[in-house]
Order: sequence, then structure tokens, then C-alpha cells
Amino acid sequence: MRKNMTLPRTATTFSPPVMEARRWLDGVDFSTRPLINVSQAAPVDPPPLAMREAMARMIIEDDTTHLYGPVLGLPDLRAEVAAQWSRAYGGTITPHNVAITSGCNQAFAAAISTLCGEGDEVILPVPYYFNHRMWLDMAGVTTVPLAAPNGLISSAKDAAALITDKTRAIALVTPNNPGGVEYPAETVQAFADLARGRGIALIIDETYRDFDSRTGAPHQLFGDPNWDDTLIQLYSFSKAYRLTGHRVGALIASSERLAEVEKFLDTVTICPNQLGQHAALWGMRNLRDWLAGERREILDRRAAIEDQFPRLAAKGWELEGCGAYFAYLKHPFDMASDALAQDLVKQAGVLTLPGTMFMPDNGGQQHLRIAFANVDRAGIMALFDRLVAYQP
Amino acid sequence: MRKNMTLPRTATTFSPPVMEARRWLDGVDFSTRPLINVSQAAPVDPPPLAMREAMARMIIEDDTTHLYGPVLGLPDLRAEVAAQWSRAYGGTITPHNVAITSGCNQAFAAAISTLCGEGDEVILPVPYYFNHRMWLDMAGVTTVPLAAPNGLISSAKDAAALITDKTRAIALVTPNNPGGVEYPAETVQAFADLARGRGIALIIDETYRDFDSRTGAPHQLFGDPNWDDTLIQLYSFSKAYRLTGHRVGALIASSERLAEVEKFLDTVTICPNQLGQHAALWGMRNLRDWLAGERREILDRRAAIEDQFPRLAAKGWELEGCGAYFAYLKHPFDMASDALAQDLVKQAGVLTLPGTMFMPDNGGQQHLRIAFANVDRAGIMALFDRLVAYQP
Repeated sequence: MRKNMTLPRTATTFSPPVMEARRWLDGVDFSTRPLINVSQAAPVDPPPLAMREAMARMIIEDDTTHLYGPVLGLPDLRAEVAAQWSRAYGGTITPHNVAITSGCNQAFAAAISTLCGEGDEVILPVPYYFNHRMWLDMAGVTTVPLAAPNGLISSAKDAAALITDKTRAIALVTPNNPGGVEYPAETVQAFADLARGRGIALIIDETYRDFDSRTGAPHQLFGDPNWDDTLIQLYSFSKAYRLTGHRVGALIASSERLAEVEKFLDTVTICPNQLGQHAALWGMRNLRDWLAGERREILDRRAAIEDQFPRLAAKGWELEGCGAYFAYLKHPFDMASDALAQDLVKQAGVLTLPGTMFMPDNGGQQHLRIAFANVDRAGIMALFDRLVAYQP
Repeated sequence: MRKNMTLPRTATTFSPPVMEARRWLDGVDFSTRPLINVSQAAPVDPPPLAMREAMARMIIEDDTTHLYGPVLGLPDLRAEVAAQWSRAYGGTITPHNVAITSGCNQAFAAAISTLCGEGDEVILPVPYYFNHRMWLDMAGVTTVPLAAPNGLISSAKDAAALITDKTRAIALVTPNNPGGVEYPAETVQAFADLARGRGIALIIDETYRDFDSRTGAPHQLFGDPNWDDTLIQLYSFSKAYRLTGHRVGALIASSERLAEVEKFLDTVTICPNQLGQHAALWGMRNLRDWLAGERREILDRRAAIEDQFPRLAAKGWELEGCGAYFAYLKHPFDMASDALAQDLVKQAGVLTLPGTMFMPDNGGQQHLRIAFANVDRAGIMALFDRLVAYQP
């Protein structure tokens, strides 16, 4: 019925990979060998009881949890983020630099909407986080893939060669999804210097920053008093405080940019949900020690992956990246990773995501992403038992 | 710093009107004469206590309220909407026709994303709901305004003359925001027939349907077994169940379209917040009588507006539309409505939204929207006292 050649926005991109992967489970019998699900980067437990009790009280006692709030978020939460960030990153971040969003995906979408129009370009290191690619597709923005010749850390020098007069931003994810790698502070700084020099934005998605293995600030960008002329930082409360079901993220940028962000957020969701924001605020104020324990546990699981890996290396596998929630593996089989991932469900009872989901143009055929954050040491041993035993 | 002429998406639209109107309150002293705020179409009270208690229990006892859920929403809520809608509209709506969204604005954004690409056109009756216009702007879609020569109900005949080979949809809001009018069933049917005949979609936003003054189905569109080749219906749980702060809406369309909607929703929010969905489900199952009482109260307030209006008519005002949450007034002053609205804050302690916010190209200068749902009979009398006494 369409009368001209314009495609609708959604026809320009692919279906959600996580939903596709879930469908691979249909009809497979896990009754004798329970599934080891290392596909989704999300906590599987609820927040601590004290936080849930605080939330339940708010529901009963605080009417504002049920009403519209400001488009850019709860003022107290914006102020808390500004204060904690200023200390953690050694810079000046004011409440007017903080917008609260309905999850971190929305923060990325909002950032791009303030930067790009039809036909503009954004540079994404590959492998990329698939929802970033999907939003760029639907926004009419061309994804320019930036490869890392050796390993998973791309370089500003390589990025420089990709900048055109249509480039509006470079978007990094550190710690990286899907690669697990932590970008060194000097590398992040080089990207920021490049972006500023060329008059484009640097978007840095730090969804997994609470599980970075390094102590102290992971980069020095906020130490620059003029950080807000270049930097847009994205964050998620979902992982730290187990709030995935409540949809709360953040976008840190110049107050001028937030006036533009406000247009997008107002139109697409009006405001972030209030209870989730109150919960995030309660978590920031009360769960510091608990979160430190969560981080230690995740780092221990990362160590377990590294401890176990030699068993897989002996079978020809390689560990290309490991950190935060993810291990990024190169498999030794003469088989495309999306077929391999589906076979692993059936033959090994393991659900991973294939590298093809994180790469353009049929790339990623040799890779699998393992989201190990939900699997304890015993589970990680069982995972490796199954992978070591597996033959296509 | 921009090197070519492409504007970022957000630069193509205006700032959120509701936030702008809130800023008009800054510095005005309401201590002796409290503000009568008839600007925002939202409940100011929380949900009934029984519902809040149910929500508090879920927070403590149901871990799934804290975790990611399906992109298209809670299966039980989708099923409940399908069942109740099938009865209410006398048609067949299955759970696979229902997507849950993070509010009704997001449902509109998702619908447009499945219909339109850059440069396409959508026909909006004027005055329009400003967030519809804002999303179309940011999506690169041209808003084609459809005027109603007499009153606020536009006609399919007039719309037919505006359809071009770029037109992808007509979007109606009924009961209307900002006009308050209820589109007659025959008018809605004529729009559906036109849309089908021309191979475009009919979007019908029924956010305020629970407060329609008519009993029974407000239109017969779902009675057509092929409704889903043309119709996309939008709904909000916010008004009926006082859940504005939880962000829950719905989009009803063909299952094929929902597969496209899933791409958009996954990328922009991952999933609607879980507690809000559980609350909406609880409300649908338990608050039928309560909601009927809410409707009667709103209808009584509408009647109060109509009872009081002759006092204003004597001063030269006209009531162009009245229904659901809204009255749409034509003022008698030689003054633009946005200046008038600001003066009313200072001189009369009344916050309305000016018609300019609902019209393109400086239209709406003679109009004000009054969102009366939060003001009881006594408050409505006080509102009219102030408006009758007002002189610019």
C-alpha cells in the first residue's frame, strides 16, 4: 500500500536480539539439565529487603510516588548524583547537569536526538551494544563502525580517520558491553581530546561502572572545567541497585543540552517513573557498603572465569575480553556464532548471545558473549564443564 | 561547530508547554489567594488505598516487580486489556494485539515509528495535543493540520483533501485534548473508511475514554473483523487509575505491527516498569465500581462548567468544547492567549494553557484550555468568579 519509497523507522533496523534469543529456548527440554542462562546482562534477584521495605512505605505514605514529576527527574536524585559524581570523578557536576531517564537506553536515545538529524553519522567501536545501533538506525543516523585491530580497545587515532563533516559523536561503552574490557583512562582522554578538537560529542556509557575492577575514577574527563562542551555521560541504576524492572537511568551533560533533552523525554515518556527514582535515591544514600560487596562478588566471578579459562583454551577457545558483567569469547569451530549459540542451547543447555548480534555486516561469526554476573563460582564451573565437553 | 546544515532532532521542535507554563508561576505570590491550577490533565490524588496496599505487598513479595519483563508488556495485563476491550467495543482483540508502553505518549511515538520515515506526513486535527506535534517534528514527519470550520470536530471529507502520496496516518484524539469534544461514532467511522480506502493508518488516542459522557462503545471500529489493517488505538492507565507517576499506557494494533513496535520499545525503554503494570492489572480487576464513581464525578464537574458558563458568556466568552477533562474557551480580549494566560496567573491566580500551545503558526490566539478534572464544584465556582472579575 505504500506509495513512495520511504521506509518506516522501524523497518530500518533489526528485531531485539534478547527477545530473539529467548525464542531459541522454545521447545527445548531443560528438566534433566537446567539451563545456564548467560544471555542477559541483568540481576535476577530483587533489591535488598530494606530497600523494598522503604519502597513499600513510600507507596503507602508518599502520594508523590504516584503523580507526575519533573521531566528531567526528581530534584533530590539529580542533586545526589551531582554530589556523588563530583566526588567520585574529581570534578564539578551540578544538579543542572543531571537528567534522570527511563533507563539508560533512553538516555542514549535522548543524547542522539540532541546531536543528530537525518543522514548524520556516529562512530561506534565494534563489537557494539546492539540497542545503540538500533536507535541510530531508527533515528536515520548512519553507524560508522570503528574496529580495534588488536583486541577490543579501539583507538582515537583510528577514529580520527573516520570523522567526516556528517559525524556528530563517538560513543564508547566502558566497562564494555559486549566485550567486558575497561577502557584505560588515557584512551578515554584521547577520545575526548579528539572529539573536542573536531567539534563533535563524546558519549560515554558507564552503565557497568560500579563493577569496574579499578579503584578511583576510571577517567579524568570531569576534572576538566569545560567537560560539558564535549562530554555526555550515560548511567544506569539498574545494575547497581537491582532496579531493572523500574527503569531508571541518567544522562550527564551541559545544562543547555539538558534543555534539549527535556523536549525528547517529555514527548517520549513525560517523566521517569517516580518510585524507581525514589528507590535509586534511597539506594545511593543507604547501599554504599552493600554495593561494594556486590562489586567484590562480581569481581570474584570474573576471576573464576579467568581461572577456568585454560580448560577452554586447551580446546582452541580464546578469551578476548573479561570484565564487569561480560566475557567475550572466540570459539574454535567452523560454524557461524548464531548457529553455534542455538546449538549450545540444545546440546549443552547454555544460552549465550552470538557475536553476530554485536556486529554489522555479518561480522562476529567467531564470537560469543557470556554475561556471567548471575552465575556463581559453582555455576561458572558447570558452565565450563559444558563448554569443554561440547562438540558441534 | 556544526559543519553542515542538518539540525539535530530536538532543534526541530519546541520546549514542553507544561514545563513552560510552570515557570510562569515563578515569583508570583499565592499566599493570600491560592492558585487555581487548571493547566495539567492529571489526577492530583494517589490511587485508592486498597490499590496502594496491593502495590506495597507486590514490592515485598513479588520479585518479578523488580526485574526486566517482556518488551511488549506483562502477559496477564495484555490478556486483561484484550478481554475487557473485546467486550467493551464488541470486537475481537487478542492479547497479541496489545502492547503495554511507558505511558501513552510513548505509544504514539511507537506507532509513528512503525508508519513513517523522514519527510512523510501525518494529518492532525487542530487544535492538536502538543506532544503529538513534538514527536512528529522530532521524527522528521510533517504535521498537516486539519481544521474544523465549525467547532472542534473535524471531518473525514476535509481530511481527504489533505492526503498526498506521503501521508501515512490520520491521528484523532477522542474525547479530545485540548478541545474536550467527543467525536461522534459516525465521524470516527468516516475517518476509518477514508484511511482504509487510501491505504493509510487511523490512529485513535482514547486516553480519556473512561470519562466519555456516552454509555457503551464510543465507536464501532473494532466490530470490523479486519480492524487491524487500519486502526491503531492508544490508551493510558494514568487517568483512570491515578497512575501518572508510574507511566503505563497501551497500544492496540495488528500483531504484525506489534513486532515492529517491539523494536522501538526495546530500544527506547527495554520494557514498561513492572510495578505500574501490576497496578494497572489490579485496577482493571478490582476498581470497576470505583472508576464508575470517578467518571460520575468528572461528568458532574463538566456539568458545573456548563452551569457556570453563562456568567462568562455575558462577558463575551464562548465555550467551544467541554468534556472529559477539558473545557476549550474563546476569550473576548484583544490580546494573544499566551500573554493572557500569563496575565491570568498574576491578576487572577489562575493557571490555564493558551491555545497557542495547541496550534501551529501562531494560531490559537483567542483560546484557553481549562483542565477542570481536579477542581470540584466549589473550586469551579471560584474559578468562574475570578474569570468573570478579570479585566486585562
